Amino acid sequence: MLEGLIRKNNSKIVFIVLDGIGGLPVRDGKTELEIANTPQMDALAVKSALGLHIPVDYGVTPGSGPGHLGIFGYSPLKHQIGRGILEALGLGLDVRDTDIAIRGNYATVERREGKLVVKDRRAGRISTEENRRITLKLSDSIGEIDGVKVFFSAGMEHRVAIVLRFPDDLPEESDRITDTDPQGEGLEPITPKGMNKNSERVGAVVRKLLDKVQDILSDEPKANYMLLRGFSQKPKMESFESRFGLKACAIAVYPMYRGLASLVGMELINFNGQTIKDQIEALKRVWEDYDFFFLHVKKTDSYGEDGNYEGKIRMIEEFDRHIPEIMALKPDVFVITGDHSTPSILRGHSWHPVPVLLHSPYVLGGICKRFTERECLKGELGIFQAEKLINLILAHSLRLAKFGA
Amino acid sequence: MLEGLIRKNNSKIVFIVLDGIGGLPVRDGKTELEIANTPQMDALAVKSALGLHIPVDYGVTPGSGPGHLGIFGYSPLKHQIGRGILEALGLGLDVRDTDIAIRGNYATVERREGKLVVKDRRAGRISTEENRRITLKLSDSIGEIDGVKVFFSAGMEHRVAIVLRFPDDLPEESDRITDTDPQGEGLEPITPKGMNKNSERVGAVVRKLLDKVQDILSDEPKANYMLLRGFSQKPKMESFESRFGLKACAIAVYPMYRGLASLVGMELINFNGQTIKDQIEALKRVWEDYDFFFLHVKKTDSYGEDGNYEGKIRMIEEFDRHIPEIMALKPDVFVITGDHSTPSILRGHSWHPVPVLLHSPYVLGGICKRFTERECLKGELGIFQAEKLINLILAHSLRLAKFGA
Repeated sequence: MLEGLIRKNNSKIVFIVLDGIGGLPVRDGKTELEIANTPQMDALAVKSALGLHIPVDYGVTPGSGPGHLGIFGYSPLKHQIGRGILEALGLGLDVRDTDIAIRGNYATVERREGKLVVKDRRAGRISTEENRRITLKLSDSIGEIDGVKVFFSAGMEHRVAIVLRFPDDLPEESDRITDTDPQGEGLEPITPKGMNKNSERVGAVVRKLLDKVQDILSDEPKANYMLLRGFSQKPKMESFESRFGLKACAIAVYPMYRGLASLVGMELINFNGQTIKDQIEALKRVWEDYDFFFLHVKKTDSYGEDGNYEGKIRMIEEFDRHIPEIMALKPDVFVITGDHSTPSILRGHSWHPVPVLLHSPYVLGGICKRFTERECLKGELGIFQAEKLINLILAHSLRLAKFGA
Repeated sequence: MLEGLIRKNNSKIVFIVLDGIGGLPVRDGKTELEIANTPQMDALAVKSALGLHIPVDYGVTPGSGPGHLGIFGYSPLKHQIGRGILEALGLGLDVRDTDIAIRGNYATVERREGKLVVKDRRAGRISTEENRRITLKLSDSIGEIDGVKVFFSAGMEHRVAIVLRFPDDLPEESDRITDTDPQGEGLEPITPKGMNKNSERVGAVVRKLLDKVQDILSDEPKANYMLLRGFSQKPKMESFESRFGLKACAIAVYPMYRGLASLVGMELINFNGQTIKDQIEALKRVWEDYDFFFLHVKKTDSYGEDGNYEGKIRMIEEFDRHIPEIMALKPDVFVITGDHSTPSILRGHSWHPVPVLLHSPYVLGGICKRFTERECLKGELGIFQAEKLINLILAHSLRLAKFGA
């Protein structure tokens, strides 16, 4: 729809994602956003356009991948990100067009009547420290297989991510490989096979990888095998810059969100520290270099997932205190939203529409008193599909030409 | 969209359809819902999620078929129910995959210059009693034609429904048969013909049926013929249980709504009596046996169609008094809505969005004071497409898995 309408100018757009920001009543009928003391957001709300976005569809609870794709302006239904890719991104592995990403579980296997069978699909849930030691052992021993580079990254407990980097770009459907997890104990692991010509080339490398892994782990008491699933390629997506004409960067702490931003071609800003303050310092430092600044705040979601509404409220308040520093940069468009809701009472992501605040000189304003779920319901943006947010951002930064004469 | 996301659990969902519930101002600028004294719904509204659904499209007035399909989660545009099917369901005939349903009108024909022509397309609008007598005569004489069973059911005045039951499932487009009504008096009835190979088999049976009808009715002074139209097969629809994982039942009095529920595979509950009280007794009796309970209240619509707003208000108040009995069952999700609006001032169905109330532990609440058109407009559900209601119901009963990681 926006094709042919995109114009460039010098406007600056700050795009804040408070991960999992939407909530439900937790105390005295009030949500986390309603309880939080947020004088800065309150003042902004009065002079901004507010509303709520639906990340994927009514009633649908999004994972972090679809949640971010939507607010980045990419249909989460059209662009599905494979499990292996998300796992690899989350564990800090870089993924490219030449790569196959895989989710691995360390497992225990044993011989029974001449057959190799799975004894424990999670290797007795080894500790994360154990995992790191074993993963380092694999990294040190397996650098390459037939010209394909192999990268490992340890996750929590028995989880591990693997990236196979081929020397050349992989054709479509190269990731169609059968999972090796037999999904039950006492069963033989399944031999990974390519389901088509393109993927069989990958399948052959995976089989060699498994042989090597088994060799190297043969003396481990628990984690003597690895089950593989979620084989996936990087989805083909037009870059944010080519699609929207915005030179964009990501100021995010956690690997998953840095990874998601890099999937759409945002540049990743490196900085010291992990706090919102550190992120804002980075924002100031790169202010002249980009049009669009994606700043991701993780802990609103983490506390929500823990059911710790007080922690979530504290994070909201902490962010609120930093708003004047951002506004001092005089962004042309300033947006605060989330990738999905994470109500503390649900201890997880939810399907509830997500509050949006958009500040620009071109809003009605004067409608909402605060940035809360209930105030957003009254707002001038209404309830809308997440992927339309980028349209509004482009419009408010005067980067969209008139459609038709 | 929901494919692969559906999970099962033990939650119970009560789904109340107050037929034609939406209205327009009838007195002192207030609608039927606004005038009604509804302490129970008022109390629920405060702690529920409210909004309005659009049954088919902006400005489109739905019939009962599309109205119900939408709120059952089936696109009313993709699943069009033939007129014959609706007529047959409305007159209490069962329709199966082996069947062709037809709308009939008793008519008067006479010979003019050797030709059989229609003298009165409605047989002088014979009385419903006349109709019943004649229809019984046909039923008694025509049981079967070439192995095809024939069922008749008398409607109001000159209207009648016919079901042809073939010995085997009918292939697609078996219902493409030309209407016999010439649409004008003094014209020859049109000979029914199949427009394709599948339907020609049906056409041959219909021609034999018409010959028999003409024979049997030859001594009738007025209703000596029958015009046939709306030939239709049961639409192929995935069952509610297979589509949404919900074991569903219908507690409805009127044949049309029982029929619509059975089209999507809901089980029909039989019970004595016709009042809301009787329906709620039935609900209690089958409470352990299902996940989803569709309870249909007809008379809100009937009074609206009569322009009797006081009657409509009384029905709303009667339903309101029964709410505590339903809530005593502790449903996990409780929904009140309609299939369409029937404003008394329009004396018919209308295109106006339909109020929705959804009660569950996972709502914001605290926004709306009553269950009325104007309060629903402020609500947290916004204005949304009817077929998304099932997404919300599944989400609020925690029956939808996360989409993507």
